[in-house]
This record gives sequence, structure tokens and C-alpha cells, in this order.
Amino acid sequence: MNVEIVNTGSELMLGRVLNTHQQWLCRRLADLGHVVTRQVAVADAGRDIQQAVREALGRADLVITTGGLGPTSDDITRELIAGLLGRKLVQNRDVLAHIEGFFATRGRPRPAKTEMETMVPEGALIFLNQAGTAPGLALRTEAGAGEQARGGEGRRTEEKEGASRPGQWLVMLPGPPRELRPMFDSAVAPLIRREFVREIFVCRTLRSTGVGEARVQELIEAEVEPLVKLGLGIGYCARPGAVDVRLTAGGGRAEQLVSDGATVVYRLLGGQIYGADDEELENVVVRLLTQQKKSLALAESCTGGIIAHRVTNVPGASAVFWGGAVSYSNAAKETMLGVRPETLRQHGAVSEAVAREMAAGVRERSGADFAVAVTGIAGPDGGTPEKPVGTVFFALAAADGVAVERRLNPWDRTTFKEVTATQALEKLRRRLAGLPA
Amino acid sequence: MNVEIVNTGSELMLGRVLNTHQQWLCRRLADLGHVVTRQVAVADAGRDIQQAVREALGRADLVITTGGLGPTSDDITRELIAGLLGRKLVQNRDVLAHIEGFFATRGRPRPAKTEMETMVPEGALIFLNQAGTAPGLALRTEAGAGEQARGGEGRRTEEKEGASRPGQWLVMLPGPPRELRPMFDSAVAPLIRREFVREIFVCRTLRSTGVGEARVQELIEAEVEPLVKLGLGIGYCARPGAVDVRLTAGGGRAEQLVSDGATVVYRLLGGQIYGADDEELENVVVRLLTQQKKSLALAESCTGGIIAHRVTNVPGASAVFWGGAVSYSNAAKETMLGVRPETLRQHGAVSEAVAREMAAGVRERSGADFAVAVTGIAGPDGGTPEKPVGTVFFALAAADGVAVERRLNPWDRTTFKEVTATQALEKLRRRLAGLPA
Repeated sequence: MNVEIVNTGSELMLGRVLNTHQQWLCRRLADLGHVVTRQVAVADAGRDIQQAVREALGRADLVITTGGLGPTSDDITRELIAGLLGRKLVQNRDVLAHIEGFFATRGRPRPAKTEMETMVPEGALIFLNQAGTAPGLALRTEAGAGEQARGGEGRRTEEKEGASRPGQWLVMLPGPPRELRPMFDSAVAPLIRREFVREIFVCRTLRSTGVGEARVQELIEAEVEPLVKLGLGIGYCARPGAVDVRLTAGGGRAEQLVSDGATVVYRLLGGQIYGADDEELENVVVRLLTQQKKSLALAESCTGGIIAHRVTNVPGASAVFWGGAVSYSNAAKETMLGVRPETLRQHGAVSEAVAREMAAGVRERSGADFAVAVTGIAGPDGGTPEKPVGTVFFALAAADGVAVERRLNPWDRTTFKEVTATQALEKLRRRLAGLPA
Repeated sequence: MNVEIVNTGSELMLGRVLNTHQQWLCRRLADLGHVVTRQVAVADAGRDIQQAVREALGRADLVITTGGLGPTSDDITRELIAGLLGRKLVQNRDVLAHIEGFFATRGRPRPAKTEMETMVPEGALIFLNQAGTAPGLALRTEAGAGEQARGGEGRRTEEKEGASRPGQWLVMLPGPPRELRPMFDSAVAPLIRREFVREIFVCRTLRSTGVGEARVQELIEAEVEPLVKLGLGIGYCARPGAVDVRLTAGGGRAEQLVSDGATVVYRLLGGQIYGADDEELENVVVRLLTQQKKSLALAESCTGGIIAHRVTNVPGASAVFWGGAVSYSNAAKETMLGVRPETLRQHGAVSEAVAREMAAGVRERSGADFAVAVTGIAGPDGGTPEKPVGTVFFALAAADGVAVERRLNPWDRTTFKEVTATQALEKLRRRLAGLPA
């Protein structure tokens, strides 16, 4: 089973918009047991769209296009694909009624431009748009629609009794994510389940921090090798301050292989793994705090509020998060945290002594069980030979005292903030999990 | 001039990672005068990568690949492309020295795995990695490297005296964005300027907030129509709390057309436009504060630090940003901001009275010229019939008093935080720019 995605949109090729469809659709399709083999993006231009769709039909069992179904002049996907497949466009009464209802319930006249959204290729399945006007469309294409002739109706898999693969499907989805996503879940996923044999595919991502990508592989390589020989796929993805280890397998032994692989990786990387799959470090920290009925306060200087932002992204954070100070200036450190002017004068704002007083100060004022403080030089300016750009001091205050650590994160400003926040959250996670600092 | 991008990475096809390279590279290339014609993503699999690169070389003058240059076993792009082009891999001493230096300055032993990063295809240009270990690579390919034979050395454009297009280039960039981006800017952009004739292409994005996408289009559509007939391209992109209007044109009249279009859009949307191109609202706010020598303090509840995070993303923010309180709990509002317990008891934390005291409190304690406070219900829990999820109160305190406004942002938690932060920054921008609130 081959699945390909064709994203259309000039705004994509001009780099004005981030293509979030790829990740979302690839993830959903993998969860349905079908890993996407290729994704292509082209501009809203006739030749480019037709060429990309023709090539995809030459290789894939299922082709999904996104975009170009709306009511404006650059929405040409529907017409181009109908032309490519030799289908006439005919008006669909259900779509017309749906669009008229859409505007009626909003008390607005139906714009004349929406007429083109009611035209669909002959023989298409229609997916009415619950969040907009343009319907999704699905076509079962004839053998040979693409560049290569294909088996079509006659081809059947023997993998599962009764399951058939009666040809290719071409599915067209509207571009706006809030229209595409519910349409995929409510209409396309059931179509795929019905028309294609589910392939067994298991994917698990173990998320680590504190060890570089090359070192992660060195640590686990030899011991996972026997599982790799049995068919376990292993992949690595480096992110700011973190490395994901991805375990994949297909077929009847997939669950067992991935589970065995995870056991090995957990044993070898141990405490460096903070979570699995979509779990973020901040979710783990909030969960551990909640389980242990402990509270947290923050004192951020160089990170400028991103640690608090990440913690408060977690629903339910308010039960454990007292709050924090973004003490960007010396005056703010004195006023909100009680850092002593002489400490700032003597050691400078980026120093072990100030980090210590920041953490102790916010812990005392908040009464929180744990306080984390960060002070450093995000750059691009402000570095000195003794304290270059990227220098950062972390402090973790608890009932048993304050621990301070100095590190160097010599990255650009944005990466510096992200990595430093990850390291601060990881310090807290290790403390909460009873791991060595 | 045809440019194609090939993104490699199984994590992309499994939907585990968002492909930010497409947008970033397409944007940079458009700015260099070359609009990308096609982008393809494939897994880290030999056949898929070779097929995608071969097809791209059959069409494009410049092919840029991303990913697969690292030190782990799934980093196979370098080897596959060398194989495809019939080039041997040889060890490069500069790369070896660079990688040894990378680990030496970090006081860590060089992992043996990094050896493979020192191997480069014969004849490749080397781009040392300023933010990591794997170098970027550029190859001038022979005519016929792709599926179709190409003009190669003999083909010359006559568009500009002295400019030549001596064949195709294949550029391989490492996957991590913080490695790829500086490498593109410092090494690839100069290569492109040197090797390819710049095509005239002008794109300008005007960024607005406070008006919906459909309304923006309605406001400007009729008046830009004559320019559209002359060749001006216009596109709209809705983002959380903001709408971008994109003006594009090519050819000799491009600058004039885009400039005339911008004049019309500024006239019709006026104060709703906060900036152009990559300018973020927070950059504009920091610039206005700096120009006016005014200082800012924040008091954030429901936004949890994202406003401070955005302000401190701007280099130089420390000159105007005193700091802020992330007063997530009632206790934090009392301790850090001096909000009175009876106000909290009587009105609740999400109320006009509390927003007012938060802003006044942080302004008084900081001595800042302006203070912005936000309190609301991010959800998913915590709503009531009187104050549903999404309710938010903004307060702006200045020398002339405190202004409070209530709004409803009924979005998911993440969008709520982003939109609310944008609205808060916009309030401050309008005040600083002398626009009505």
C-alpha cells in the first residue's frame, strides 16, 4: 500500500505559510496503518498540480490532495483533476443546499463566488464541509489514470479474507486545517478503513534529554542490533536540548519488537528518557508535581518567561504552579525576589550568587515546595571573556537548600531560550523522579 | 531557473516532526529571486531518496536536500547521493579538525560515530557547521546527472552581462534548523548569488491584526483590482489573531506594482497594519518603546508568561523591559502585585477590578512608564455562565490612569494564549503609536 500527499498552494512555495498538513495527515495515516511514502508541494499552477497528481497516481494506491477547493480565482484543483481524469464537472444539489444553509444560519447572502464550490467531478463521493463551504471529494480512479497502468478492479490482496483493494482512490481535501481535520476524521478515515487492508504498523518515540544524538546511538546501538536484525526500525531526531529515539515495526511481530526495543532503550538510557510519544517535558513535570502534591515557583531572567509559558501550556498546571517572576532587570530582581543590591554589584546579574538568591527569594515569598531560577546571557550582546554569550546559572531551591549549576549554551537567542528552559525543567524532573542531578 | 527542495526524514513521513525547512528555505529563496517550484519529502530510505533526487535533477537547476547528514545509522543522504552521482567519499581534514575542535571546546571526547561526518563526496564544496558537527555539501553536477540530459557548461543566459549558469548545483544541508539556517545564510545564499541570475521577483507582506480575513479582503478587494489586472498578485493568510496580506509581482514593473499595492492597502487598512514582512508585533512594540525612551512591566495570569517570552525574544528588549510577574495563583497576585485579598474575594481573579489592580500594582512597584496586565480563563476548565472559558480582561496602566477592556477568546488553550498575547501587545502598540484604543 502506497500513500502519497500532494499539497497545493502558492503561499507554501513562497514560504509565507507553514505546511502543517504534512505532519497532521502523515500522523493520522500512520495511525491507520499506512505510512505515507511521499509528500509533494506545488504552487497553484495548472501544469504543476497536474504533473504532481499524475506522477502520484502512477505510484500510489491512495493520493490525497490538499487545498485549491475554495471559491476564489486561485482555487483550481477541482477543475484540473477533473480534466486530468476526463470527468465532467456537474452541480451537486446536496452541496448547494449545504452552502445555502451555511450562509442562511449566519444571516448573510450566499456570495455568487461559492457557485463553483457546488460543481463536482462526475461519480465523486462528496464530503460535506462541517466547518466551511467547499466539500471534500473522493474519486475511485480507473486503472491507468496515472502514468503507469495499474491492476484496478481485478487486483485483490489475499492478506485478509474478504478484504479487497478495488483500485486507486484520489481524495481532495480543503486547505484550511479547521475544515480538513474534522473532514478527514469523519469521512476519509472510514473510507480508508473500508477500502484498504490495514497494515500492522507500530511506532513509539522515546524522548531523551541531556545526551547528544551521536552518544545516544553509541549507548544503545550494540544492544538493539539483534532486534534490528529481526525487523525493528530505529531512528533518531535531534531537537533543541533533546533527542528522540523512534522505534518502528510492521507485521505480526510489530508490537513485541517495539516493546522489546523500548525495554532495551529504557534500560540503557534510563533516567535520560523523560517521556514517550507526544509527552512534553513540561507535561511530565506537572504530572510529577501533581502526583507528589508539590508546588512550584519560578524566577526567570534570561529565559524571559518561556519556562512559565511552557508550564502553563499544560492543562491543570494551576493546581501546582504558584507563578513566577520574569526578573529581566536588576531592579526587578531586587523588587520581586529580594536579591540584594550588593550581591548584584559584587557578582553581576549573571552569577552563582544571584541565581541562588533568586531561587531562595521566590521560594520564600511563594511558600512553594520547589523554586527554579535561571540567569544568563541570551545574546547577541552582553558577553565577556569570563562570561561569554550563552553562559547560564541554574538554581533549584527546595526544603534541603539551594543547588546551583553553571552551563554554557552558545546558541542563537531563540535556541538559547528553548534549550535553557528544557535544561531547567529537566533539573526539576530529575529531582522529582529521585534521579541524580 | 527551477529550484526544488528534497526533505529527507522518516520522522517527517511518520508525522512525528513538523517540516519547518520548507517554509524557511522557500522564503529565503524567494527573497533571493528564485521561487521554489516543487518540494518533496521522503523517508530515510535508499530507494526513495535516490528516486526523489534523480527526478529533481531531471527538472531543476538547483536542488537542495535537507537532513540525513548526521552521525547516526539513518543518516544516509551523503552516501546515497555520492552513489547516485558516481562520486567517491573521501575524508576531509578541515571537517575532521572542525569536529575535533567542537568536542574539545565542550570538554567531551569525540564520539567515534562522528567519523562518518568527515567523509565527503569528491569535488564537493564544504560548508563547515558553525552550530554542530555535520558539514553542508555542494556539488556541481555533470550534465545528465538526472533523468534528462541537460545543457550543462555550454548553456549560458544572456539576461545579464557576465552572468553564467554553468550547470546544475546540488546542495546538501543538515537537518537541525539551528544548523541549517546559519549555513544557508553564510554559505548557500552567496553561492546562489554567484552562480545563478537573479530573477526579478518582489514580495511584500503587510501584517494586520484586529480584523478578520474575509473582512480584510472585502475592505481592499475592489480598490486593488486595477493593479491585479496589471499583474499584482494578492494573497491572504489568517494566523491566530492576525491576517497577513501578501503582495507579489515579477518582471520590470514589479517594484512599482507592489509599492502601489502597498499604498492602497495601507490607506484602506490604516492603523490595523502593525508591520511588514518578518516584523513581529513584539518587535514593533520594543522599537516604539526604545524610540520613545519608555519602559514596560507586565502582569500575566492566563497568558502564563508568553507575553514576556515574546517581548524578550527581541534583541535589545532589556533596555526597555523591566520584567513582569506571572501571577498564576491568587497568592502570587497578592505577593508580587499587591492585589488586595478582598478584591479577589469580591470579584474573582478574572475580573475588571483584579486586572486593574494587577496593572497598577506592577506599574507602581516597577516604576515603569507602561504596565500591561491580563487575567482570564484559558480553559479547558474553569468557565462559568457569567465568565465562560475564553473570557479575558486586559488592563493598560500609564501615567494618566488604567484602562480595562473585557473580551472573549473562545479558542483552545494554546490558541487562546497566543491570541490574547497578540491583543495585549496590540493595545500597547496602539497607545505608543497614538492610535485610538
